[in-house]
Amino acid sequence: MYTYLDKINSPADLKKLKPEQLPALAEEVRRFLLETVSTTGGHLGSNLGAVELTIALHYCFDSPQDKIVWDVGHQAYTHKILTGRRERFPTQRQYKGLSGFPKRCESEHDAFGVGHSSTSISAGLGMAVACDLEGTKNHAIAVIGDGSLTGGMAFEALNQAGHLKKNLVVVLNDNEMSISKNVGAFSSFISRKMTGRYFRDLKKEMQGLLRNIPAIGTDILHFARRAENSLKGFLTPGSLFEALGFDYLGPLDGHDLPQLVEVFNNINQLDGPLLVHVMTTKGKGYKPAEDTPSKYHGVGVFDVATGKGAPKAGSKSYTDVFGETIVQLAEQDPKIVAITAAMPDGTGLNRFAERFPKRFFDVGIAEQHGMAFAAGLAADGFRPVTAIYSTFVQRAYDQVFHDICLQNLPVTIAMDRAGLVGDDGPTHHGVFDLSYLRHLPGMTLMAPKDENELRHMLKTAVYSGAPMAMRYPRGAGYGVEMDNELKSLEIGKGELLVEGNDVCIVAIGSTVYPALQAAETLKDRGISAGVINARFVKPLDANLILSAAGQTGRIVTVEENALQGGFGSAVLELLFDNGRQDVTVKRLGIPDHYVEHGSQAQLRKDLGIDAEGIAAAVEGFVKS
Amino acid sequence: MYTYLDKINSPADLKKLKPEQLPALAEEVRRFLLETVSTTGGHLGSNLGAVELTIALHYCFDSPQDKIVWDVGHQAYTHKILTGRRERFPTQRQYKGLSGFPKRCESEHDAFGVGHSSTSISAGLGMAVACDLEGTKNHAIAVIGDGSLTGGMAFEALNQAGHLKKNLVVVLNDNEMSISKNVGAFSSFISRKMTGRYFRDLKKEMQGLLRNIPAIGTDILHFARRAENSLKGFLTPGSLFEALGFDYLGPLDGHDLPQLVEVFNNINQLDGPLLVHVMTTKGKGYKPAEDTPSKYHGVGVFDVATGKGAPKAGSKSYTDVFGETIVQLAEQDPKIVAITAAMPDGTGLNRFAERFPKRFFDVGIAEQHGMAFAAGLAADGFRPVTAIYSTFVQRAYDQVFHDICLQNLPVTIAMDRAGLVGDDGPTHHGVFDLSYLRHLPGMTLMAPKDENELRHMLKTAVYSGAPMAMRYPRGAGYGVEMDNELKSLEIGKGELLVEGNDVCIVAIGSTVYPALQAAETLKDRGISAGVINARFVKPLDANLILSAAGQTGRIVTVEENALQGGFGSAVLELLFDNGRQDVTVKRLGIPDHYVEHGSQAQLRKDLGIDAEGIAAAVEGFVKS
Repeated sequence: MYTYLDKINSPADLKKLKPEQLPALAEEVRRFLLETVSTTGGHLGSNLGAVELTIALHYCFDSPQDKIVWDVGHQAYTHKILTGRRERFPTQRQYKGLSGFPKRCESEHDAFGVGHSSTSISAGLGMAVACDLEGTKNHAIAVIGDGSLTGGMAFEALNQAGHLKKNLVVVLNDNEMSISKNVGAFSSFISRKMTGRYFRDLKKEMQGLLRNIPAIGTDILHFARRAENSLKGFLTPGSLFEALGFDYLGPLDGHDLPQLVEVFNNINQLDGPLLVHVMTTKGKGYKPAEDTPSKYHGVGVFDVATGKGAPKAGSKSYTDVFGETIVQLAEQDPKIVAITAAMPDGTGLNRFAERFPKRFFDVGIAEQHGMAFAAGLAADGFRPVTAIYSTFVQRAYDQVFHDICLQNLPVTIAMDRAGLVGDDGPTHHGVFDLSYLRHLPGMTLMAPKDENELRHMLKTAVYSGAPMAMRYPRGAGYGVEMDNELKSLEIGKGELLVEGNDVCIVAIGSTVYPALQAAETLKDRGISAGVINARFVKPLDANLILSAAGQTGRIVTVEENALQGGFGSAVLELLFDNGRQDVTVKRLGIPDHYVEHGSQAQLRKDLGIDAEGIAAAVEGFVKS
Repeated sequence: MYTYLDKINSPADLKKLKPEQLPALAEEVRRFLLETVSTTGGHLGSNLGAVELTIALHYCFDSPQDKIVWDVGHQAYTHKILTGRRERFPTQRQYKGLSGFPKRCESEHDAFGVGHSSTSISAGLGMAVACDLEGTKNHAIAVIGDGSLTGGMAFEALNQAGHLKKNLVVVLNDNEMSISKNVGAFSSFISRKMTGRYFRDLKKEMQGLLRNIPAIGTDILHFARRAENSLKGFLTPGSLFEALGFDYLGPLDGHDLPQLVEVFNNINQLDGPLLVHVMTTKGKGYKPAEDTPSKYHGVGVFDVATGKGAPKAGSKSYTDVFGETIVQLAEQDPKIVAITAAMPDGTGLNRFAERFPKRFFDVGIAEQHGMAFAAGLAADGFRPVTAIYSTFVQRAYDQVFHDICLQNLPVTIAMDRAGLVGDDGPTHHGVFDLSYLRHLPGMTLMAPKDENELRHMLKTAVYSGAPMAMRYPRGAGYGVEMDNELKSLEIGKGELLVEGNDVCIVAIGSTVYPALQAAETLKDRGISAGVINARFVKPLDANLILSAAGQTGRIVTVEENALQGGFGSAVLELLFDNGRQDVTVKRLGIPDHYVEHGSQAQLRKDLGIDAEGIAAAVEGFVKS
C-alpha cells in the first residue's frame, strides 16, 4: 500500500499533488521499484537514480503534448509507473508483459522507442522541429546519461541542435557512470567540479593575465596562446555546451525535488536549445546498488534485504568461456589486444582488462570508432579482438565494411548475445548479423555449436590473418567437456554429426544441439534425419552440404537469424548455383517480423526453432 | 617540365630540397594538379588547398614509419604525387589506373584506406597505440577536415584519444567548408576568429569579474554562473580541444610553408595527443575554384583557362529528377520535409532547400543522426525524405533498424548513387543496400527502371505511411517521357514488360532496360525471353514471378547489387518457399569480391550485367 503512488495513474494525477508531497512519493516509487525489480529482474541502478528527475519532469511538463525521450531507456521505469502502467509493472520484461524499454505502441507517453544508446537528442530535435513547424509551444525533452554522450551520434545531434535553435531541452543525467565506469576525456571533463580552490586559482590567473594584455594590434597571437593556456583549466561543462550553442543550467542535485521543480518550471520561459545538467547517484537509496553500481545495473531476481541474487545455475556462460579463452591466448601472444564498447563485464573482457591493462581498450559507447580503431591496430600488425553484442555491431556495419573487410584487415569481431536475447526484446535481439555480414566480400562468418567450439573458433579467428566474425548466444553453455588444447579449425569446414537417409538438418551455432535432439526424436518417429554442424556461414562447406543434399534429397536449415538473406538463404544460393534444384529445402529461423521479449526458451518455442519445433517441422516436411 | 617536381619520386627525394625551395615546389604541384585533374576529373578544390600542408608533412615526418592517415582522401593527391605516383597520376580514377583515394595496396605510404568520412582519428589512434605497445617513437598523424569533424565517429575517437594520451597528432585542415558550406554549431565555433576586438572585450570582462570574485566560501555557485556567462564568448577552438585532453597548436596559415615546417619539426619534441589547427583555402591558387568551391569540389574534365567544364550531355540525371519531384510534391504538402547529410547538391535537394528553407535540414556528415532526426519528425506527423547516397546509408544501418523500421515510422530513404558508381570505386559503390535493408521487417524496398518511374516511386514512398527505401543509380536517366501526373504505385506489384516462352528475365532498377535490350538480342538468336520489371525487392510480386516461373521454367534475375542476400536471393527464397524448385534459376549481379573503379559502362560490362552480358548469360543458361 502506497499513500500517494496508489492514486497516480497518469501525469494528471501526479499534478494533483502538492510540491511538498513529492519527496514522499519519490520514496514510495523507490520502494515499489525495489519490490518489483527484485522479483522480475531488470535495470535497477539507473532507475533508482532517476526517480526524482522523472517525477519533476512529469510534474512540470505536459506529456504527451510535451515529448519526453529517454535515451536507451534504462532509466524509464518511474516514467512507466507514473504514466498508467503501475499495475502492469510487475509484468515488465516478462513474456507478453510490459517492455523493459519505452515503446511507442505501449503508451502515448512513450514519445520514442529506445533500447540502443545516444538516439534521444536526434529524435528530440526532430520533435522540436516538428513543434516549431506546427507553431506549437510544446517542448521536446531528451533525457540522456553521461555514458550515452560518448556515442558520436549524440554529438552529431548536439551539433545540429546548437545550430538550429529550436526549443529542445537536453537533460544530462550525469551519474559519472554509464553501465561500467565511464571512459573518455569528455566524461572526465564534464565531471570536473567547481570548488573554492577553482576560484582562487582563477582569480590569480586572471590578475596575471590582465597585467599582460597587449595594446590592440601588438603581438595578439602570442598573447592569445598564453591567455588560453592560463584559462584552459577553468573551462567548465557549461562553457563547452554553450560553445555548441546551448544555454546551460546546472549542475543541479538530481535528488533535490524542490530545486528540480523550480528549474523545470522556469524552463517554460526560455527559448532555444537548453542543456540542464543534473547530477544523480546510480542506485540512489539502495545501499548495495550505491556501493557496487556496475553489479546492480542489470539484475536478475534478488533478495532486497541482503542484495543477494540467486546463485548462477549450471554451466559457464559463453561470455565467461570467451573471456577465459582470450586471456589464455593472450598469455602466449603480445600482439593480441582487446576492445569493448562500454561492456567489459557484459562481454567477459573484464578478466582480460585486469590481466593486460595496457592491451585492453574500452572505447565508450562508440562501436563505430571501436571498429576503425581495431582496424588501425590491425594495420600495424596487432591482432585485435572486438567484443560487442550482436545488436550493437549494427552500429558499426559501415566500419566493418569500409575499414576492416575492404582492406582485408585481421580484426576478430566477437558477437555476444547473438540470436534471441530474451527479456530485452526486439531492440536487443541479435537476429540480423548473419544477414548483414554475409554479403561483405572477405568476411568469414562462423558460429560455434557449444562453448568448447567457441574456444577453437576464437583461436581460428585470431590467427586467420583476415576479417573474422563469430556469433554466440546469450546465456549458459551446455557444460560440455573442454578440450585441453586450442586448435585452429579449417576455414569453411563443417562437420557431419549424424548420418541420415530421409533428410539432413543443416544447423548453425545455437541450433545445432536442438537439431541433434530433434534427430533423436525423429528416429523414434521412424524418420532418419542427418545433422550437420555447419560452423561456417561464410564460406559454406559446399562439399559437405551438397553431398548430404545428394544423399537425402531434402535439406532443412535451422538458424537463430532472420530468414531473409541469412544462413538458409546461403544454402539456397549454394544449391541453385550448383544446379541442385532437385533438392527440396525447408528453412527454419526468424520470420519477417520483430520478435517481442520473453524468455529465450519461450521465444524459441514460439518460433519453432527449439528441438520439438525442429522435429515437428522436419516431420511435416518429410511427410509432405 | 617541372624543375623540382620531376625529381621527386619519394619522400626521401623531397627531403633533399632546401626549405626555401619548397614554395616553388608547391606552385609546381598546383600546376601539375590543374593540368591532370582538368583532363581526368576528380576532386580539385580540397587538393589545391592541401598542397603546402602535404609537402610540410612529408618534409618533416618519415612516412611510412610515421603513419599519415588522410580522412576521406579528397585531399590526398599531393600525397600520391610525392610518394612515387606522379607518373601514374594521370591514370587516377581511370579504369585500372590509380585510385582516387589512398589505398593500402597501392603504396606503403597509404597507411589506411579511406573514402568514407571521419575515420582517420580512429585509425590513427589505433596506430599510435600500436607504436606505443611496440615501444617505437613514430607518430601517427590524422589529417581531417572541419567537415569530417561533424561526423560523430570523429568525436568518439577524439574522446578516447584525449583519454589515452598516446602520440597522436590530429591535423585539423580547416577550410570552413567540407563539400558544401559546413553546418552545425561546432563548425561555427571552430571558425571563430581572434581579433583585436576580441581582446578588448576580454580585458573589459575580466576586469569586471575581478571586482566581483567572492571570498572563498561565499556564494560560489552564483558567481560561477556569472563568470561563465562572461567568459563564454571568449572560448576558442583551442580551449575546446584542450578540454578534450589535446594540446592545441594554431590556428596556422596552411599556405605558409616555412611556418608549417617549423611547427611540424617541433612536434617531434611533444608528447601526448596534439591538435594542430591549420587554416586553408579550398581551391587555393586557382581563382574559379576559390570563388565557387562547391562547384570545384569534384569536377569532370574542364578547361583550365576558362574553368568551364564540358556541357552536360543528354538526359536529366536521376538526381535532378528526384530534386524536381520532391519540390513538386512539397508544393502541395507542408508535411514533407527533406534531410541531407552534407550533400544538398549531390542529392538534388538544393532546389528544395531554396524553395522551402524551413523544411530543409542539412545535418552535416552525420547519417546516423539524420535518420533518427527524420524518425523524430515522422513520429510527430511529418513526412520526412532523407536523401543520402547508398554507400553512406551504410553508416545509418542501425538507425534504419532501431529508429525507423522497428517503430514503423514513415520515413522515405532516397538512396542516390546505388549500384556501381564508377570512378570513385569500391568505397563508394552502392552495391549492398538491397542485401542490408531487405531483412529488416517492415521495410519496403524498391528501385525504379527509369527516371519517370522514380517520380511515381517517390510519391508512393512519401504517402505509404511506413518505412520506405528506394535506390536509383548515379548518372543520366534515359530521357523517357515524363507522365503528367504523379501516381502511387501498388506496393509489391511489378510489371510484365515482355512475354516470353523460354525464359523470364526478372530485373530490378537499373538493370531493367539492359534486360529489355537483351531480350531483343535474344529474339534474333531464336530465344523467347520475357522481361519483368520487379519494381519491389520487398515485398516481391510473388504472383507475377511465380506465374512467369511456371510458364517458362527458367528465371534469370539481374541486379546491380551483391549476389549474397540480394534481389536474386529473395527470388530463390520465394521459389523454394512455394515449392517451385522445379524452376531453374540463374542470378546475375555483383559477385563476392570488391569492384574496383572504372566507368560504370566498363564495370557493368566486366560483370556481365550490361545488355550484351545479360543476353550471353541467358543464352548460355537456356541452351545448357
